[in-house]
Amino acid sequence: MITEIVQLEIKPGEEKDFEAAVAMAQPIFKRSKGWKSLEVHRSIEKPSRYRLFIIWETLENHIVDFRESKEFQEWRALVGPHFASPPEVEHANKVAAF
Amino acid sequence: MITEIVQLEIKPGEEKDFEAAVAMAQPIFKRSKGWKSLEVHRSIEKPSRYRLFIIWETLENHIVDFRESKEFQEWRALVGPHFASPPEVEHANKVAAF
Repeated sequence: MITEIVQLEIKPGEEKDFEAAVAMAQPIFKRSKGWKSLEVHRSIEKPSRYRLFIIWETLENHIVDFRESKEFQEWRALVGPHFASPPEVEHANKVAAF
Repeated sequence: MITEIVQLEIKPGEEKDFEAAVAMAQPIFKRSKGWKSLEVHRSIEKPSRYRLFIIWETLENHIVDFRESKEFQEWRALVGPHFASPPEVEHANKVAAF
């Protein structure tokens, strides 16, 4: 399991539209291979900044299976219009939790 | 509940020492007011980069209660020597999850 960490800057004033678009995307992820869960966090210091924490079974499920799928195109069509700049994406392994 | 998101650059070669230091810090957090949980994520693309996701009952529990406590001093004494640069800290509210 890996976590995709996405940092997003949303166009000011479109935050609620962006949140509604993410909610509409749930069925897209549900049919994506290896997808496990998605969390949306909104920054307190910078309210137009969001982070998504998306858990995938494997790195390949995100960077190959998802990115090459029509689901990715649908996801970007829903949320992309609200992006103020390109998303910053990184992947991580959870090494500890308590 | 809020999430403290910390991005850390660790001195190359000290990653395992840093991870061991975080594990030793569990009792420090357990006695900190409003602390709920801590996750440690290591970047796949940049293996000296880590993110901590620390959940607190309130923002004040982190930025006032914890930062002004002796527990904060103990935490920094444990992990700080492994930091390659000052931590980047931000707080966020979870607005959705599925």
